Parts: sequence; structure tokens; C-alpha cells
Amino acid sequence: MTATATRPLTVTDAIETRHSIRKFVQQPMNADDLREILRLASLAPSAWNAQTWRFAVVQNPEVKEQLQAAAYGQPQIGSAPAVIVVYSDMEDTLDTVEDTAHPGMGEEGRAGQRKTFNGAFGGQDVAQRGQWGLSQANIAFGFLMLAARGLGYDTVPMLGFQPDKVRELLKLPEHVQFAGLLPIGKRAEDGFPHHRHDVERVTTFY
Amino acid sequence: MTATATRPLTVTDAIETRHSIRKFVQQPMNADDLREILRLASLAPSAWNAQTWRFAVVQNPEVKEQLQAAAYGQPQIGSAPAVIVVYSDMEDTLDTVEDTAHPGMGEEGRAGQRKTFNGAFGGQDVAQRGQWGLSQANIAFGFLMLAARGLGYDTVPMLGFQPDKVRELLKLPEHVQFAGLLPIGKRAEDGFPHHRHDVERVTTFY
Repeated sequence: MTATATRPLTVTDAIETRHSIRKFVQQPMNADDLREILRLASLAPSAWNAQTWRFAVVQNPEVKEQLQAAAYGQPQIGSAPAVIVVYSDMEDTLDTVEDTAHPGMGEEGRAGQRKTFNGAFGGQDVAQRGQWGLSQANIAFGFLMLAARGLGYDTVPMLGFQPDKVRELLKLPEHVQFAGLLPIGKRAEDGFPHHRHDVERVTTFY
Repeated sequence: MTATATRPLTVTDAIETRHSIRKFVQQPMNADDLREILRLASLAPSAWNAQTWRFAVVQNPEVKEQLQAAAYGQPQIGSAPAVIVVYSDMEDTLDTVEDTAHPGMGEEGRAGQRKTFNGAFGGQDVAQRGQWGLSQANIAFGFLMLAARGLGYDTVPMLGFQPDKVRELLKLPEHVQFAGLLPIGKRAEDGFPHHRHDVERVTTFY
């Protein structure tokens, strides 16, 4: 299974062949593939269909350079044709919560959605509910990596960066919380083999 | 694409056909498939390969009944042949951190891994670093749902339950944090069609 795979990978093959890749082929991302990968990630589930995740896609070389600086200069950002910044915006989610009610539920559903979210988060402060939003975004972060691999792309999830600098660079509001940065492209190196606990080590059966 | 699909689904098909399913065919989980799904979820990435996720698989009818009670009686738990409780145990992660160093890095790698984790989390309290662990576990939670769907199974992620009661029932330490409950089985109903924001609504290009 290589970067040149032309048919979509099975979930099993995508997971097995996903490794963190830090050196990428020097060619721009195909725009249609990029949009499709983001669309698939958006199909992740979230409680009450909140869809707290937001994506900032950095391809402009100058912005990418500044993003790299905000990530302690780590070269995988410079090497990748695009970097997807995955974050959650719980305040935007709350502001537009009616949009996430299923249309089949009609006007009543929209009102119910508002009531549900007000009840759950009205008494929480921005940081607290932001943390909840981030949990949802992290599930989509997982979907995003597999959607990319399924279409023959490679990624490397990164948590090593200065959040305040990234917020400033991308002009994001202070309350957003980052799932991570995800350089994406076609692999120009092999990744390390997986090293994981045995299933039995991390699972208990009841 | 139905529950009777016998060949593994592509990532695209798995994501497209994954819907929250609350009524399951009444038959036990195939033990090999269950283990394979957990193995694939374990291949999720995590910062420094921390692998903070842990799985509690509930199949015993009496335990499942008590789990359902801890989740406000929601019937999808009773309907599913198995429920995978996904949680993160950051304290266990820290206690055994040397095991997660890649073997290729040798004794030096193991010592380095200990130093990295002590530096990052030694100054944090249990709740704070537990939150970090949960973020990693949520990525594996996303992998878990897609691994299941890829092999023809259906799931429904649940956040509506009483964490303290679940901890008590499963005899888990107080510090563990839950990503969610995941009833799993073969679908006996169709899910709702997806309703999501357009990609353009949740994405900004730079």
C-alpha cells in the first residue's frame, strides 16, 4: 500500500498503513481531494449533532512559514503542501445551534435544539464548555486522518505548537480550542512501524 | 451497503454509511471481529505514543443491565450485544510510560520517554493531565467507530450516562475519564440521514 494507491483503501488498510509522515512529495494538494477529505471528516458524529469542529487550511507559503514558526520550527509543516488546523469553536456552535437540528424535525426540532444546548451549557463558563466542544472535535480529528489515508494521503498529527500564536496568525477568537495541526500530502518517506500495547493490556471484558 | 456486507468497506463507504444505530440484531458479537476492531482502534496515533485509551467491553447481561441503568435506561444498551466503554487512564499511562517507547530506540528511548512525560505532566494535577489523556482517547474513539463500520458493524456513541455510576460498576479508579459508551452490533434499523454544515461553513482557507 503506497502513496500511489489509486483506489480507495479499506478502513483496515487505511489504519494499518497510516503512519506519521514528516516528509512529503513537493506538489500542491488536489483541491477536490482536499474538499472531499474535509467533507468526510465532517460526517463524524457529535452529541446532539453539535459539530463543534472547524478547519483552517493553510497553503499560502508565507502563512505556512509563520505557522511553522509557531510550532517551534518543526520541518514537517514546511514540507507539507497543506496544513489543516483542527479546532473547536463552541461559541460559534452555540450561536448557530438551530442549524444543526435535523430538518426532518421541523420548527419544533429547532426550538428543542436551542433548549437542549441552553440547558446543557448555559450554566458553564466558556472554558468549561470549550473543553466539551474539543472532545467532539477530536473524534472528527480521527476521522480526518483516516479519510485522508483512505484517499491515498498521509498526515502527521501535531500538538507541539503555541496556541496563542496560532490564534493570532489565523485571526481566530480567543475561546477556540485546538485539537491539533495536521500537515497533509503524499508521503516521501516511510513511517515508523506501529508500536502499541496488546489489546489484552488495554481491554477488560465484563 | 448493508449490515450483511462481507467484504471490508473503504473508508469513504464506512464514513458515508455510518449512522447512529439504536436497534441491533439479537446475536452475540463475533469474538474475533471484536478483538480486531479493538486492535485497529489501538493503532490510532497519540502524542509521544502515549496510548491513553482503555476499553471495557460489557457483554454479560447483568452487567449490561446495570450499565443501562447508569445511562438513564437508554434502550440501545440493552439492544446491543456488546457495549464498549472507552475511557482514558492517564495515571496508568504515566505509571507504565516506558512500555510505549519504540523498541527501536532502546534503553535510551525508554529513559527519554520517562523524562518527556515527567516534564510535560509532572507539574499538572490529576484532573488536568486527565483532560489531556481524554483528548488522545477521543481520537481512538473515532478510529473505533470506523474500524467497526469497516468490518460491517454498527455503533452509537453515547455521552448521556452517570460517570460515577459507570466507574463504580466497572470498578474503575476515580481518575479515569470517559470518551463515551459505544453499543456495537449489526444494525436492525436504518439510521437517520446525515445532516451537516457545508464544508465551506466550517472551513477557512489561508
